[in-house]
Amino acid sequence: MNTPDHIIAAQSRIAGFVHRTPLMESGTLNAMLGHRIVFKCENLQKIGAFKVRGAMNTLLTLKEQGAMPERVTCFSSGNHAQAVAYGAKILGLKATIFIPQTASSLKVAATRAHGAEVVVTKTRQEAESAVQAVIDQGAVFIHPYDDDRVMAGQGTAALEAFQDGPAFSAVFAPCGGGGLVSGTWLAAQATSPETKVFGVEPLNANDAARTLRDGKIFKWEQAPDTIADGVRTLYVSERTLAFLKQTAGVLEVSEDDIIYWTQWLTHLLKLTIEPTSAGCMAGVVAYLRAQTTPQTVLVILSGGNVAPETQAQIWAEDRLGTVPCL
Amino acid sequence: MNTPDHIIAAQSRIAGFVHRTPLMESGTLNAMLGHRIVFKCENLQKIGAFKVRGAMNTLLTLKEQGAMPERVTCFSSGNHAQAVAYGAKILGLKATIFIPQTASSLKVAATRAHGAEVVVTKTRQEAESAVQAVIDQGAVFIHPYDDDRVMAGQGTAALEAFQDGPAFSAVFAPCGGGGLVSGTWLAAQATSPETKVFGVEPLNANDAARTLRDGKIFKWEQAPDTIADGVRTLYVSERTLAFLKQTAGVLEVSEDDIIYWTQWLTHLLKLTIEPTSAGCMAGVVAYLRAQTTPQTVLVILSGGNVAPETQAQIWAEDRLGTVPCL
Repeated sequence: MNTPDHIIAAQSRIAGFVHRTPLMESGTLNAMLGHRIVFKCENLQKIGAFKVRGAMNTLLTLKEQGAMPERVTCFSSGNHAQAVAYGAKILGLKATIFIPQTASSLKVAATRAHGAEVVVTKTRQEAESAVQAVIDQGAVFIHPYDDDRVMAGQGTAALEAFQDGPAFSAVFAPCGGGGLVSGTWLAAQATSPETKVFGVEPLNANDAARTLRDGKIFKWEQAPDTIADGVRTLYVSERTLAFLKQTAGVLEVSEDDIIYWTQWLTHLLKLTIEPTSAGCMAGVVAYLRAQTTPQTVLVILSGGNVAPETQAQIWAEDRLGTVPCL
Repeated sequence: MNTPDHIIAAQSRIAGFVHRTPLMESGTLNAMLGHRIVFKCENLQKIGAFKVRGAMNTLLTLKEQGAMPERVTCFSSGNHAQAVAYGAKILGLKATIFIPQTASSLKVAATRAHGAEVVVTKTRQEAESAVQAVIDQGAVFIHPYDDDRVMAGQGTAALEAFQDGPAFSAVFAPCGGGGLVSGTWLAAQATSPETKVFGVEPLNANDAARTLRDGKIFKWEQAPDTIADGVRTLYVSERTLAFLKQTAGVLEVSEDDIIYWTQWLTHLLKLTIEPTSAGCMAGVVAYLRAQTTPQTVLVILSGGNVAPETQAQIWAEDRLGTVPCL
């Protein structure tokens, strides 16, 4: 089971292969809320998302162990596909990636641009079963979150922020399969154990929150309907649940709030931000409303790969007329 | 008349009041075009646009001359309003800003947030005549481009890029009233006189190109219809025309190309970019098509203040399906 030391080791391992992304903040936003909100800009990471950290840590761990495969494989409708394709390109491996046809054509094109063989399948279930044939031929499978090496890699984003930034009373990260939140919690134990760690997920895709409430893993039968396409995961794993239980909780946010904060962060930070990441701000606001003194908090902007059809949905209605406040 | 030394002096004058914004590039874009495109990120500047450079240089020049007014004024439907309001706030002056009601409510709100008194007028003409009453009461008027101090301030964006970046064979900047392009040409003379300087404007708002072709200033009767709201200026001035004539030219780009490149730069750079700035890429492509060896060019991303209704227009149709190429 991962320990804080695994995050520190992952950081050294992947340092030459990923960007040490900047921390940014908006003076206007801080003034509006009366607190300090610091953003870790993983949207400016290689492939436009933190996912490259977990993929690189897995591949480089295999290399250290002398177990580097000739081919890697995964299934993903999102950033993990690009992360594995990018890692394989850098290390000279073949990659076969299964992507359901519901994924955006942009992500398919980006994955192919890294030289991966992309197989488009009708459904996610079909992708999951097709991958087995490639594994049987000797390819190494990289799971998007249910893997200690992936989880340790994802935790390096928060670790950098703890090292580079001020002291944070709380940190907020999107919760899909739970890899990023688990890694973030471990990073906090390594450097800043007094910092509260919150996962944030859409109310429409609240399997992690339900799982924590009920004590057993809740599984969606099909991808939940949310604009936050980075967290349409069907369920968390036992591996990530063990860490999610130790966090300060998983906060549930509305689709409306996700769109509102995507517009406002795009405007205030001048960055392209996935709704998945921007939604964290609704969790931040809920947290700050309960505070009696000014806080400094960290938000992990997990990615910036936004499909054009999602952009159209985000900007369908003007939400900048209502100024953020607590 | 401004000389290259005025840009260098402006740089020292305003250095403590503006960001030295980063240069960014996209490896993916460079690979697609087979050239190196470097972006000067003035969308990450204070107030989200380069305009703060000209306003600060004007106000600080007045201060040096012991002629600091109690009140400043301007008319603007865009970033110049915020720039003057910001400068006034920093230097403890009152500001009265006239904004036509056609401007976005977002820009009105942002200007008010800097503490300026904002007067919303029915038309641009009404704004221009109302400003006179305030000047008569002793306020100093700051023109958006027809002013040597403003022009010198705008030139500092390119000057920083020439100092911080590689050698550029050409630089591309949006052309509205011509202040930024004139300042950029002067900055090139100061540090990199072999660099070609191009202005870029929408074909729908091509008064600068017409003026250069006809040899006399072409004036729109009303703001031209283009999505590039930063360059809806009615005409260039004799002051800026003198410099525009010495540039490599003003390139005209279609509305379609402006939207195409706004989508692509948003996607590739993960930055919020005004259509006014993104349109420069159509000029870059036209230039690169005529080159026989790999070039390194600079694009000034002049701002990132995009109204929600403009975002909806930008993303109405998916343009990311067609990959950039020469």
